[in-house]
Amino acid sequence: MIKKKTEKKFPSELRMDLVSNDWVVIATGRARRPESFAKNHPNKEIVLPKDCPFCQEENIKEIIARRDQNDGSWFVISIPNKFPAFSQGDDLGERKEGPNRIMNGLGYHEVIITADHQRQMAQFSQREIEMVIDLYQARYLDLMNKKFIKYISIFHNHGQEAGASVAHPHSQLLAIPVIDPDLRSSIDGAESFYRSQGKCVYCTMINWDIKDGQRIIYQNEKFVVLCPFAPQVSFEVRVYPKTHQPYFEKMTEDEKILLADALQKALNKIYQGLNNPAYNFYIHTAPATKGNYDHYHWHLNILPKTATWAGFELGAGVEISTIEPEKAAAFLRKQ
Amino acid sequence: MIKKKTEKKFPSELRMDLVSNDWVVIATGRARRPESFAKNHPNKEIVLPKDCPFCQEENIKEIIARRDQNDGSWFVISIPNKFPAFSQGDDLGERKEGPNRIMNGLGYHEVIITADHQRQMAQFSQREIEMVIDLYQARYLDLMNKKFIKYISIFHNHGQEAGASVAHPHSQLLAIPVIDPDLRSSIDGAESFYRSQGKCVYCTMINWDIKDGQRIIYQNEKFVVLCPFAPQVSFEVRVYPKTHQPYFEKMTEDEKILLADALQKALNKIYQGLNNPAYNFYIHTAPATKGNYDHYHWHLNILPKTATWAGFELGAGVEISTIEPEKAAAFLRKQ
Repeated sequence: MIKKKTEKKFPSELRMDLVSNDWVVIATGRARRPESFAKNHPNKEIVLPKDCPFCQEENIKEIIARRDQNDGSWFVISIPNKFPAFSQGDDLGERKEGPNRIMNGLGYHEVIITADHQRQMAQFSQREIEMVIDLYQARYLDLMNKKFIKYISIFHNHGQEAGASVAHPHSQLLAIPVIDPDLRSSIDGAESFYRSQGKCVYCTMINWDIKDGQRIIYQNEKFVVLCPFAPQVSFEVRVYPKTHQPYFEKMTEDEKILLADALQKALNKIYQGLNNPAYNFYIHTAPATKGNYDHYHWHLNILPKTATWAGFELGAGVEISTIEPEKAAAFLRKQ
Repeated sequence: MIKKKTEKKFPSELRMDLVSNDWVVIATGRARRPESFAKNHPNKEIVLPKDCPFCQEENIKEIIARRDQNDGSWFVISIPNKFPAFSQGDDLGERKEGPNRIMNGLGYHEVIITADHQRQMAQFSQREIEMVIDLYQARYLDLMNKKFIKYISIFHNHGQEAGASVAHPHSQLLAIPVIDPDLRSSIDGAESFYRSQGKCVYCTMINWDIKDGQRIIYQNEKFVVLCPFAPQVSFEVRVYPKTHQPYFEKMTEDEKILLADALQKALNKIYQGLNNPAYNFYIHTAPATKGNYDHYHWHLNILPKTATWAGFELGAGVEISTIEPEKAAAFLRKQ
């Protein structure tokens, strides 16, 4: 009897774009029919805790948490994403299809949620933000040594316009077997600047910005919050460690407290000044591979969604802002 | 008497990102106060022709038009953008500010509108689409030889979710003094593939896709409409000339008719299948500089806005689709 080969398809796959050599993900975990992508009336209803997936105890499969010191209840927790774009496995399954390259969508996809359905990060105290950052770092340190993992992305989407499909405050963590093309480009840029100028491009920018002063929103001993000279969107805000540091995960306890202070100020000023806009933030840090990335400088980018000329950049890949970062910074500084 | 230097500030400026070396635009033409960026209730009201800027005759300052053969009224027209991100001038004004590079936002910014306030491109006849394409080409041929112009971007945003601030159907044309970083990356990718493989990367992909058949939505003698193997978004659709051609502007009359046929089918199938979604399309073609771009292959990208996991890619620059392009193509093929 011939044994029939039963090939179990991996839940998602990475496909390489032949032109850019960037990898994209095809994640069909929700198994939706094509018809279900058709435009519906936008759902702007307020989701109450009783209908929120993150408010149901049975969905909370703890990976790790940070808890209230008094009653032991969790304040922030990491759980597996119910519809992961990347899943665990022991084989990358690299293969070709015609001229194209494919591999399994192997990795980790977690959701990091805070307990309160309503209170968003911009409303957190410094101590609460610190617990979130501490948990990000703990997950990073655990996942960075896993097999096949080259890059860990930590990001937070707030508001429907920023792609948050669930209103309950949450961040996401992806640990993946390829390096994100945006990070690759910023790593390459930093390396090329280092080679030609003998110094870190981010240190160069930060030192100039602190000296110039116009784009600074806030600073403490270790971190600076600023509007970048060449922003991707109106009111883009970045948080940088002031002294050179390629690796997010190497932050000390003291630095975490000061990062929490800086991030709390940044999010709160955006919340106040722009009336609770939708936004994304993400951390760019050196890849989780063994390479030498000492020329890199980790940072956190916050991209508020202001309505103006959204999508304008599409096709004309050149990004357009409709306010000078100097004015945006002056406005946020005084909030 | 000392003559005081009166420096008139150029309406917009290009600033270089020190890390990526990409240029971004700061266009403050609308002179909005920072407060005006604060989140408001989204304006979902239907704009009637009486309140539409493109329906008021006094706003229609014709650059060039294509007209009805019977009554001479314009069907499609190019006019200057009232709030241009790029303006004409005779000096690039390249300068430095600390480590940063700046130049004037010198160039052309036009809006290409069709007469009917309601009827959108997906509802146009082949002949009507042909007139739009013909006008795109005419504007391209005029602007490509202007001083300082390195790149011409033609794109169309449909629907609020795709960044169209005006409901009246319109495309935009930007002629700018820098090369858009997305195009730069695709030109570089095509060149590097050509060097290593001795053939055009786009021809390689198209030939495989036509042979494989799974991702083809429609084809005629000269053009193919397909879902790319490695898409940027769910239901991404591309229109390629089947034979190698780097330069959009070199299309013949016959080819324009066949492109109109292909684009009409593509837009209409998306409209039918996805229930009139918002979308962007843009043309990627060789830069308007004197360089040799013979390894490039021009094409048109259509990016529908389906709700799923929008913004997911942010921070994890890796793009995520939630339907296989093979299934998306099968679905659109049968519309």
